[in-house]
Amino acid sequence: MPVSPADLDGADRLSAFRDRFVIDDDLVAYLDGNSLGRLPKATQERLAAFVREEWGGRLIRGWSESWVDLPVAVGDELGAALLGAASGQTVIADSTSVNLYKLLHAAAGVRPGRDEIVIDVTNFPTDRYLVESVASARGMTVRWLEPDLVENVTPDVLATALGERTAVVVLSHVDYRSGTLLDLPGLTDAVHAAGGVVVWDLCHSAGVVPIALDAAAVDFAVGCTYKYVNAGPGAPAFAYVAARHLADARQPIAGWWSAADLFAMSDTYETSPTIRRMLSGTPSVSGILAVQEGVRLIAEAGVDAIRAKSEALTAYAIELLDAAGLEIVTPREPGLRGSHVTVRHAEAREVAAGMIERGVVPDFREPDLIRLGLSPLSTSYAEVAAGVAVLVDCAAR
Amino acid sequence: MPVSPADLDGADRLSAFRDRFVIDDDLVAYLDGNSLGRLPKATQERLAAFVREEWGGRLIRGWSESWVDLPVAVGDELGAALLGAASGQTVIADSTSVNLYKLLHAAAGVRPGRDEIVIDVTNFPTDRYLVESVASARGMTVRWLEPDLVENVTPDVLATALGERTAVVVLSHVDYRSGTLLDLPGLTDAVHAAGGVVVWDLCHSAGVVPIALDAAAVDFAVGCTYKYVNAGPGAPAFAYVAARHLADARQPIAGWWSAADLFAMSDTYETSPTIRRMLSGTPSVSGILAVQEGVRLIAEAGVDAIRAKSEALTAYAIELLDAAGLEIVTPREPGLRGSHVTVRHAEAREVAAGMIERGVVPDFREPDLIRLGLSPLSTSYAEVAAGVAVLVDCAAR
Repeated sequence: MPVSPADLDGADRLSAFRDRFVIDDDLVAYLDGNSLGRLPKATQERLAAFVREEWGGRLIRGWSESWVDLPVAVGDELGAALLGAASGQTVIADSTSVNLYKLLHAAAGVRPGRDEIVIDVTNFPTDRYLVESVASARGMTVRWLEPDLVENVTPDVLATALGERTAVVVLSHVDYRSGTLLDLPGLTDAVHAAGGVVVWDLCHSAGVVPIALDAAAVDFAVGCTYKYVNAGPGAPAFAYVAARHLADARQPIAGWWSAADLFAMSDTYETSPTIRRMLSGTPSVSGILAVQEGVRLIAEAGVDAIRAKSEALTAYAIELLDAAGLEIVTPREPGLRGSHVTVRHAEAREVAAGMIERGVVPDFREPDLIRLGLSPLSTSYAEVAAGVAVLVDCAAR
Repeated sequence: MPVSPADLDGADRLSAFRDRFVIDDDLVAYLDGNSLGRLPKATQERLAAFVREEWGGRLIRGWSESWVDLPVAVGDELGAALLGAASGQTVIADSTSVNLYKLLHAAAGVRPGRDEIVIDVTNFPTDRYLVESVASARGMTVRWLEPDLVENVTPDVLATALGERTAVVVLSHVDYRSGTLLDLPGLTDAVHAAGGVVVWDLCHSAGVVPIALDAAAVDFAVGCTYKYVNAGPGAPAFAYVAARHLADARQPIAGWWSAADLFAMSDTYETSPTIRRMLSGTPSVSGILAVQEGVRLIAEAGVDAIRAKSEALTAYAIELLDAAGLEIVTPREPGLRGSHVTVRHAEAREVAAGMIERGVVPDFREPDLIRLGLSPLSTSYAEVAAGVAVLVDCAAR
């Protein structure tokens, strides 16, 4: 007899974390935590207290008392808990796009004399668009990888593009459509063997897949915090620069927050010797505090425990989808996938709309994909069961 | 007999607006609204409701239901109420630094064949640093204006730098140190007569000085919202591109939010034909909502009424400072100043620290300046009187 979702939830060591989030009872299932994570109750309280006491009460004094250090302090917290990054290499600020733009320039700059940026055609649009923009501005060439969507960037696919011209390789740790999890250490080694540097986009893995940037000798990384970090719509992103590159990593959005002395208002620009050089303008204080709360929830649960539940949740979803005969795009080997499961259906747009009408929120991706994002801290097995049941029903119409 | 501050407050038609802000009774006077504006009560409620109902309740559906249009919708509101800008020319997103970076590239791009960017040495650091960065990246030359701090950039000073090589001129509407208000229409005309385009930094004027960008045929403008717009620490900034430049205005941070179809996830990048092309990554939703509340307060009061009180408040401060024999840097002609009054004192740092100890918050600026920022919607005459009295006392020690 198959195990019931209630039994699975009963045996789930992380099940209590679901109560730490605001859960809307009007929804049958929220399966889009990989687009926008749920609201942690602690964040709701923290933001209200920040507005009331810090902005309203401390006013400008808040900057010198604590806010000015937040981009690096919370960057360090996120780096330690989520990225395997020692302190002084991670900042929280701006959007993923803006940070990626900065990192691309910085990465190209540490490999002068090389003129190719490598990226795959399956990568997220903002990554592809920004690579084209930066390559064009720097007189570089974009070398396109054309992997299969599901197998995605394997060592063999990457090898076809690497060579003496390789300056920078841009890869997404988890593919935003198929959910395929790339071999971060292995691909990083391959880029290094060719003499290039790598920029990892961790948007779909940060907080849900164990990551060890320092151990893998990753050069640069970027990611958002509104997915599995649960920091809210448009929350600031993170940027990581390996300590060994800091002295040479120059980014062009040289605003006052990137200067060696923020308040000196110097006549001449001197870039900060620390990771603060990746900042530009005044960052959102409330945004960074929401990131901090999200990071603390993850640190409390532990990324390894989160990953274990993620593998089990996705396996459970795949089992239910298989039983209904739906086409699954996501790799079946747990070690090869992140935390979303993607279904291909000829009428995906209509199926997704039908699901939403019935209180199940998935994510539609052009032209024929439905993503089910399973966020281990807030998604229950019962939710997966209920959500997939509605998907199966809508898909059968 | 001199008029008492209580009488002045009694006659103030905007006095009721002070009750619309959270006022910390522990402070004798908050005179730094030009660094960080006070917290509007409506914003406190709006942010709590947003977190609870929109993020917590609508989750990802919020994007399609309303959030995706916010950068332009609130940009239009701000443009109409504060900038004299018709719709479709203003967006809210990113920081001032990031937006200025984008506008500098866009501005340089609409004047191909010209290779000089003009900026004054008195301009705010981030403006100077970014001009240097963009000029370097584009192979352009920075032409430095060296005005007197107080007279600042007059038509005569500007004329020395304009010519056939002038591509872009970057000016701050109100000087962040002296408080000098520049002649925006006249200087804009002069730049145009030379064949260049102008980028106005409105950080210290937006919301407190009447601005008519369309009427003055301004090309590009940028500004923050955490000063007189009262949108909170690190709130997103605005960027304005005149409609006639939109088709040619290209910026390099070509993230997905700048694409013609945000959710098409196209293989090739096509920039949005609208002002959305100035966006990059996912903007902070709560940040934009705080901007909207701040803008609505200003629209309700009216910028002209705010300006009238600003002139009266600064005149009152100058009168009190004069009576104490302190050195005032800010122009005495009301039409030549913004909404802060700056005092020069050999021991400015110690004086400012002493004031803060006694519950009066000014702003210290290297090496010898103390700024008193008077924000008409939340600053009372009584507050000015009490604050200046403490300044005078501390300065006399």
